[in-house]
Amino acid sequence: MPRNQQILLDNRPEGEAAVSNFKLVETETPALQEGQVLVRHHYLSLDPYMRGRMNDSKSYAAPQPLGEVMLGGTVGEVVESRHAKFQPGDKVVGMGGWQLYSVVDGNAPGMLRKVDTTHVPLSYYLGAVGMPGVTAWYGLVKIINPKPGETVVVSAATGAVGSAFGALAKARGCRVVGIAGGPEKCAYAVNELGFDACIDYRAHSDLKAMSQALKQACPNGIDGYFENVGGYLLDAVLLRANAFARVALCGMIAGYDGAPLPLQNPALILINRVKIEGFIVSEHMEVWPQALQELATLVAQGQLRPRESIAQGLENAPEAFLGMLKGKNFGKQLVQLI
Amino acid sequence: MPRNQQILLDNRPEGEAAVSNFKLVETETPALQEGQVLVRHHYLSLDPYMRGRMNDSKSYAAPQPLGEVMLGGTVGEVVESRHAKFQPGDKVVGMGGWQLYSVVDGNAPGMLRKVDTTHVPLSYYLGAVGMPGVTAWYGLVKIINPKPGETVVVSAATGAVGSAFGALAKARGCRVVGIAGGPEKCAYAVNELGFDACIDYRAHSDLKAMSQALKQACPNGIDGYFENVGGYLLDAVLLRANAFARVALCGMIAGYDGAPLPLQNPALILINRVKIEGFIVSEHMEVWPQALQELATLVAQGQLRPRESIAQGLENAPEAFLGMLKGKNFGKQLVQLI
Repeated sequence: MPRNQQILLDNRPEGEAAVSNFKLVETETPALQEGQVLVRHHYLSLDPYMRGRMNDSKSYAAPQPLGEVMLGGTVGEVVESRHAKFQPGDKVVGMGGWQLYSVVDGNAPGMLRKVDTTHVPLSYYLGAVGMPGVTAWYGLVKIINPKPGETVVVSAATGAVGSAFGALAKARGCRVVGIAGGPEKCAYAVNELGFDACIDYRAHSDLKAMSQALKQACPNGIDGYFENVGGYLLDAVLLRANAFARVALCGMIAGYDGAPLPLQNPALILINRVKIEGFIVSEHMEVWPQALQELATLVAQGQLRPRESIAQGLENAPEAFLGMLKGKNFGKQLVQLI
Repeated sequence: MPRNQQILLDNRPEGEAAVSNFKLVETETPALQEGQVLVRHHYLSLDPYMRGRMNDSKSYAAPQPLGEVMLGGTVGEVVESRHAKFQPGDKVVGMGGWQLYSVVDGNAPGMLRKVDTTHVPLSYYLGAVGMPGVTAWYGLVKIINPKPGETVVVSAATGAVGSAFGALAKARGCRVVGIAGGPEKCAYAVNELGFDACIDYRAHSDLKAMSQALKQACPNGIDGYFENVGGYLLDAVLLRANAFARVALCGMIAGYDGAPLPLQNPALILINRVKIEGFIVSEHMEVWPQALQELATLVAQGQLRPRESIAQGLENAPEAFLGMLKGKNFGKQLVQLI
């Protein structure tokens, strides 16, 4: 059996996460039992939710256990199989974790799924045609549920979720406005991803400036907002929200290090009769097939061309992950392992 | 025609509202035109939403115009009619405002409604079987939509909305927990209104104490919350919210004087996958017939026995109104005008 490399959570962050929270170890891959499959990972997905799991506090997911392999989505190739459904060479997506190889129970529902790489590159199954894409789909379709002509806004617009959100919303005839960090990302959102406008939050770094920028970018007000960031962005959106606006609350990456992120004026939820709904896409597996099909079609037709930031080598995963939390990535953050 | 007395909004509050914001005037009631009805008011309703309209700021309703009669719900009796549908002696509910008489266009839809006082006292049409009752019904049925056995919480529990909420929720098999000010109100909520428990916010005046009290009163967590108050109560409820809890945001009376009321930790909306929805009952007229019927039945069957605080005389309306904003009322606040 091949040698494996794994990254474990060694200790929990105090405040900001650091490379020293992680530990790289070498292990053997165990011999396969009947029904098991050995997968060699080509790409590891790095996602903001992982930061939440590093804390030992109440959240929707159990905390990442100390001393265990960091959880994470992976795509790869079956290299050995003792399960009739999987053959060596099969391309698969699963939750293999921060390691080079994983041993998967082929019978466990949803743990390993074969994918077709004819029209969709393998890595996209971790982004636009994977969990982040379905996340965007759920928030847009099931919570915001926009009518054609309505204005929808998304923060972290050029990330894996935001770029999928933009394509899905444009396909529904919405005006789509992004919020992203820096002029390069904003230009990319408009010129490559098809957003109608994109606001640089670094150039509008307080409530008043952001609210003013939203007013310009959304002359008819805001009907839907997909929140990945939190903080003053949500305050600013509520100031510009139309009556009966809907907010899909997917992430608050600005607060993952423990800084308090109060909502300044929740009375606006009442004044504008807003609906705010938090959600976790893994609790809505029933929508995945429909969402993945639409996302794959958008990719195949060239209407969704997501960008990727690819770090090389498992040993660089922690640094890439910490950079992503600060917005240093540009598009879906991956680690190439092969 | 009889002499009328009216209370006008004379000037807008700076911070806390005061008696000096109002002015009492005497006028003639005008002669009736064809299609009009003259109503003598028996009771005027005082409601928290009126405080919001006294400000000249963006809200869901247009501000109360200066120099005009304060808007408000009234019940009374037709004393003269030039409309075939209304006869002298008819008992009616309408939006007659802070005055002794009103002249109403009998053709305007929804402006004047005849009511039956056989099983329901006239004044109840301003409370339990009126706008406050329907408000409770909408938040409970259309937003919280509880299952039997779920735990629901309401603030301002002994007020017109809260007491109706309690009866409606008990009828649906919920555990119902109130929040109210002072031991007398809390005892009344449990002993008379049928709440399973009631927390005195004066004895639990910060987030930690309230959160602890909610934990005791809601051993299975909180599935639904009907918010009339805002501030640290909502923060405390979010700390005890179960996954997929629903919050009906009806009022934030704690913030009506302009004090900022931030929500300390909106990340809990995501962590607990909470839905928060602001609403105004007047935008959902389609539910009124169904809601009023259920409320009238609960009253007739003795399952909803709302309490009333009745001030005497129009001239005392401002003071009663200001007292209600501070929770000095006990039950539905009315002014008797006859």
